[in-house]
Amino acid sequence: MIVDVNLNEYINNKQTLVEKELKTYFHNQEIPHELKESMLYSLQAGGKRLRPVLLFASYQIFKQDINPAISSAIALEMIHTYSLIHDDLPAMDDDTYRRGQLTNHKVFNEAVAILAGDALLTYSFELITNDPLLTEKQKVQIVQLLAQASGPKGMVGGQILDLEAENKSLELEGLEQVHTLKTGELLKFAISTGALLGGATKEQISELETFAYYLGLIFQVQDDILDITGDEKKIGKAVGSDEDNEKSTYPKLLVLDGTINNKNEYVQLAKKALKKAQADTSILMALTDYFSQRDH
Amino acid sequence: MIVDVNLNEYINNKQTLVEKELKTYFHNQEIPHELKESMLYSLQAGGKRLRPVLLFASYQIFKQDINPAISSAIALEMIHTYSLIHDDLPAMDDDTYRRGQLTNHKVFNEAVAILAGDALLTYSFELITNDPLLTEKQKVQIVQLLAQASGPKGMVGGQILDLEAENKSLELEGLEQVHTLKTGELLKFAISTGALLGGATKEQISELETFAYYLGLIFQVQDDILDITGDEKKIGKAVGSDEDNEKSTYPKLLVLDGTINNKNEYVQLAKKALKKAQADTSILMALTDYFSQRDH
Repeated sequence: MIVDVNLNEYINNKQTLVEKELKTYFHNQEIPHELKESMLYSLQAGGKRLRPVLLFASYQIFKQDINPAISSAIALEMIHTYSLIHDDLPAMDDDTYRRGQLTNHKVFNEAVAILAGDALLTYSFELITNDPLLTEKQKVQIVQLLAQASGPKGMVGGQILDLEAENKSLELEGLEQVHTLKTGELLKFAISTGALLGGATKEQISELETFAYYLGLIFQVQDDILDITGDEKKIGKAVGSDEDNEKSTYPKLLVLDGTINNKNEYVQLAKKALKKAQADTSILMALTDYFSQRDH
Repeated sequence: MIVDVNLNEYINNKQTLVEKELKTYFHNQEIPHELKESMLYSLQAGGKRLRPVLLFASYQIFKQDINPAISSAIALEMIHTYSLIHDDLPAMDDDTYRRGQLTNHKVFNEAVAILAGDALLTYSFELITNDPLLTEKQKVQIVQLLAQASGPKGMVGGQILDLEAENKSLELEGLEQVHTLKTGELLKFAISTGALLGGATKEQISELETFAYYLGLIFQVQDDILDITGDEKKIGKAVGSDEDNEKSTYPKLLVLDGTINNKNEYVQLAKKALKKAQADTSILMALTDYFSQRDH
């Protein structure tokens, strides 16, 4: 299939760009050695860079020269990485492995892991303000969107709700709220910021945000499905952990068949929103299927 | 003494303003209940608001209408508070009390305390971008200064060096580096940002930053002295903890008399820089003595 080949090429190309750019943000930065090592360890621990890829794909609906989108994509990846480091801590999910590698606090120690997370979060805002390719107005908009998406009304809020939801059963609505905040807000940031920097109209941004909302749900439903049906070697962590943690998940609420139906409905709604954006969204269309069918 | 009376009035007045304003930043914000409680618990746990006071005092050298400086002062206090929450965690300093009250993770739990710190850090950047009294250019400058001061090249960098320094002896130079990063950078932010928003010249900002550098050292030396000679009830935590933790401190390097001489030298250098700023810096002069002589 042509689309598949192009999509894989697109993803690989953007992943390579992210790996290269991540390093440049640490050149000539006077960061104490151990802190820098710890930050880079998790940044380079085999992430798929899906959030930067989404940001670039949304941006490239409107513009080709990708340079003005790089700092936002890197900041987003840093925030995502900090959230994983803190999530893995003993006081949180207490995970030993992430993507098949030891978690940050297992390689360094808890104190260093906490500080590396704090440092990645803080540095992500700084690097936006340092970007000579952005206007002052764009910098303010991006810092604002990024802080909203990742802060107490966004991702961190979702993490608290997720903790509270352990050992109690959520209704479908409550489960969607957790995921929308915990995972969806950063995906929405990727799509909105890409479109904003690309010069999309307000109407287009609005449709793309609707798309991002459903994409977030697809992402989480597939995560839950993989926790039941997935291959440990591909996922890089133990399957069945949601069951062990007595977490509310889609399969528990809807059983597996219902979950897959739900996911397919979200895919239709995501693609409908993309069509309404009235632009060449073929990469995002293909990414929707990719997210829906990913096996790790 | 006239100056003393005025200074106490000045500090009280600004503390009251900070208490009031802190609350307004949580009105109508959709933050999950427990997260908001945890953030507010530490924000309202009896801090002296010295960093906001410094920011206001620096600003008011140049302008009287204080409103454009409020969001920066609140953001700074949030960042300071997040750093205390994370510092107190079992994996870090493992403290049970702070300012005579239970630490955040003792009242809530470790997971909530980690997330409350993350949320305060992130929200501090958002509220700068939301301030209608600041220009886009000012917002970018403040976010940049705040991220630099608190991130891996600033406060978090200092925290890592401080951890590394436990159980090993530092030279005076190494000790100053830890304190300059861990404590001094946020104090410098207070002074620089106040002056910047007030409209100081580059030369004035430069002199005020020199002042802030020595003020940071005075602050830390006095902390170390209080850990030996202080009154537990006033400090709100056990004295002698530095000795127990085998930390490098000024008194250990210089013995108590030498430490006091060192502090007095820093006071002279701080005041010399203030004079060179060629403006009415009487409040900052008085604050220098206040910092140098504080008993808690």
